[in-house]
Amino acid sequence: SRSINLAVIPGDGIGQEVVAEGLKVLSAVLPQDVKLETKEYDFGAKRYHATGETLTDADLEQLKGHDAILLGAIGDPSVPSGVLERGFLLKLRFAFDHHVNLRPSKLLPGVATPLAGQPEIDFVVVREGTEGPYTGNGGTIRKGTAHEVATEVSVNTAYGVERVVRDAFERAQARPRKKLTLVHKNNVLTFAGHLWTNIFTKVAEEYPEVTTDYIHVDAATIYLVTDPGRFDVIVTDNLFGDIITDLAAAVSGGIGVAASGNINPSRAFPSMFEPVHGSAPDIAGQGKADPTATVLSVALLLRHLGYEAEADRIDTAVAADLTERAGKPARSTSEIGDALAVRVAG
Amino acid sequence: SRSINLAVIPGDGIGQEVVAEGLKVLSAVLPQDVKLETKEYDFGAKRYHATGETLTDADLEQLKGHDAILLGAIGDPSVPSGVLERGFLLKLRFAFDHHVNLRPSKLLPGVATPLAGQPEIDFVVVREGTEGPYTGNGGTIRKGTAHEVATEVSVNTAYGVERVVRDAFERAQARPRKKLTLVHKNNVLTFAGHLWTNIFTKVAEEYPEVTTDYIHVDAATIYLVTDPGRFDVIVTDNLFGDIITDLAAAVSGGIGVAASGNINPSRAFPSMFEPVHGSAPDIAGQGKADPTATVLSVALLLRHLGYEAEADRIDTAVAADLTERAGKPARSTSEIGDALAVRVAG
Ligand SMILES: CC(C)[C@H](C(=O)O)[C@@H](O)C(=O)O
Ligand SMILES: CC(C)[C@H](C(=O)O)[C@@H](O)C(=O)O
Repeated sequence: SRSINLAVIPGDGIGQEVVAEGLKVLSAVLPQDVKLETKEYDFGAKRYHATGETLTDADLEQLKGHDAILLGAIGDPSVPSGVLERGFLLKLRFAFDHHVNLRPSKLLPGVATPLAGQPEIDFVVVREGTEGPYTGNGGTIRKGTAHEVATEVSVNTAYGVERVVRDAFERAQARPRKKLTLVHKNNVLTFAGHLWTNIFTKVAEEYPEVTTDYIHVDAATIYLVTDPGRFDVIVTDNLFGDIITDLAAAVSGGIGVAASGNINPSRAFPSMFEPVHGSAPDIAGQGKADPTATVLSVALLLRHLGYEAEADRIDTAVAADLTERAGKPARSTSEIGDALAVRVAG
Repeated sequence: SRSINLAVIPGDGIGQEVVAEGLKVLSAVLPQDVKLETKEYDFGAKRYHATGETLTDADLEQLKGHDAILLGAIGDPSVPSGVLERGFLLKLRFAFDHHVNLRPSKLLPGVATPLAGQPEIDFVVVREGTEGPYTGNGGTIRKGTAHEVATEVSVNTAYGVERVVRDAFERAQARPRKKLTLVHKNNVLTFAGHLWTNIFTKVAEEYPEVTTDYIHVDAATIYLVTDPGRFDVIVTDNLFGDIITDLAAAVSGGIGVAASGNINPSRAFPSMFEPVHGSAPDIAGQGKADPTATVLSVALLLRHLGYEAEADRIDTAVAADLTERAGKPARSTSEIGDALAVRVAG
């Protein structure tokens, strides 16, 4: 019989609330023969304040045993900027080699967008997750003085770039439009830019059906607001991916509905699925948070584990729910979760 | 009697056309007693192909003698990516220490924006121009092999950050709303991020009237499309500034109307003014390019040289022209230039 052994990390702020709804929908969608086991972990601001720990080697050892990880949100204003981000979120992505950071953007009919004219938006960003300016390389000399110098080193390897570029070509190949756009800044960041561009061009030869193009990251932000329909699959570096996926989320329904997967396609380590939004401490505990992004992250998780039909059911349920929402009064976090659970079960 | 000794670099593609209109408006706006001398330089793709040169020491020596530089656009698909960007544009910014890269965004009534609801937009980005990931530090080992490693080093100094942060505080102080936002990614790029954040906080103490806040660059792209009215002055690093100013241009009328100044406030070297758009080879030579961004760059140039009233006249003329354009058939490059020249003279 089949089973899913899931690590659950509610985290901080609205993380608790949205993860509860994600699990509700997950239970509702899974066939009866699939045994769902969950184990909750207390990572985040509270544990950091109590113990000074963010993510220990022992924690990683435990997490390794799971099939996948569902995360709500990590981060709190009481913790200095960077401590939980570098000490937990990025540490986990790097430790489990989550090199494919997958972020789909789809604007559903009736869903609010800041863009005029309700354009068609349906693309997915494959953001590299383990290299680039996120490696933590760099440092500071003469800290706090008038002569301080701080460096950040973006590290890019052929190995790291090629595997994520290949993953993106595979995804583009599997989609109807079969189009892949490389986003970088190769006219300024010429060392990394040439590596990315050369590997992209080389791998493209193996995918003759996939149409390719290249856009500088600055120009990409223009297209994301003037012609987002031009994108099908985007592959890009870690930092550019961070920036353009927030913008992509904003134009395609808001970060309340933006899901992401931190994926290790080799399955050597469990992959991690999380909403793109943060812990939103200002609305935490009030039942106001939209759990949709978490529910869509559960769909990505199911797809990663091979439960395609169940993932499709969630996507369909969310699309129907979002379209139905338009113009109606806001529902609470659990009302949305309940409605989605009913839909996926039905 | 007063005089302006201007270096003119038409450059590639539409550069020629838009610069001609910029000069037309400049001549029309200047009082009779101001002597305008211009010298044209042939930098760009053509010269690169003919001589292999982009910008020599002798060129820089000549350019130094001018009061300011007006540039159209540099770049052509016939030249490998990065050659003219690093070899000319960035070389000039670095050689003349253009550390204040000034990019105003103002959405005028009636002007088309991809955003729904015609929001109020009126802010200015102060982008650092001589540091960060633009320094060209970094390199490549094992180039072209499966073991290639390419690095890009972002270099940030207290000296470089403090001077641009101070400039931004001065600008914020001089504006009615007196608000300054630091945009960075200090939760991930912790070395550079802490340097920027600490200096920003320290300098803020000297400007008690200025309201300050901090936003991560990814979140900033969200605000730029959902609530651009929240921004007054933004200060940010070179690469983040590159990205968010293209987005800012897109939401506030398009890159056809986005101006920029590469300013050395010390006036040790001439400052350089250019439209944010590129050389647009696809429409070059057809009289289709909008010269408005270049004309607005001329206004920034005049303001820099102390011709405030003349700069204001250009801004007013452009605002009137843009509002009048709405819904009318497109005019040619020179028709727009003529109309603006008439307005500023009148
Ligand atoms: C919180 C932060 C470390 C993270 C990132 O920059 O990757 C977040 O912005 C994201 O996009 O998941
Ligand atoms: C052409 C390129 C070097 C330049 C930059 O990245 O600064 C451009 O995008 C700009 O914004 O002026």
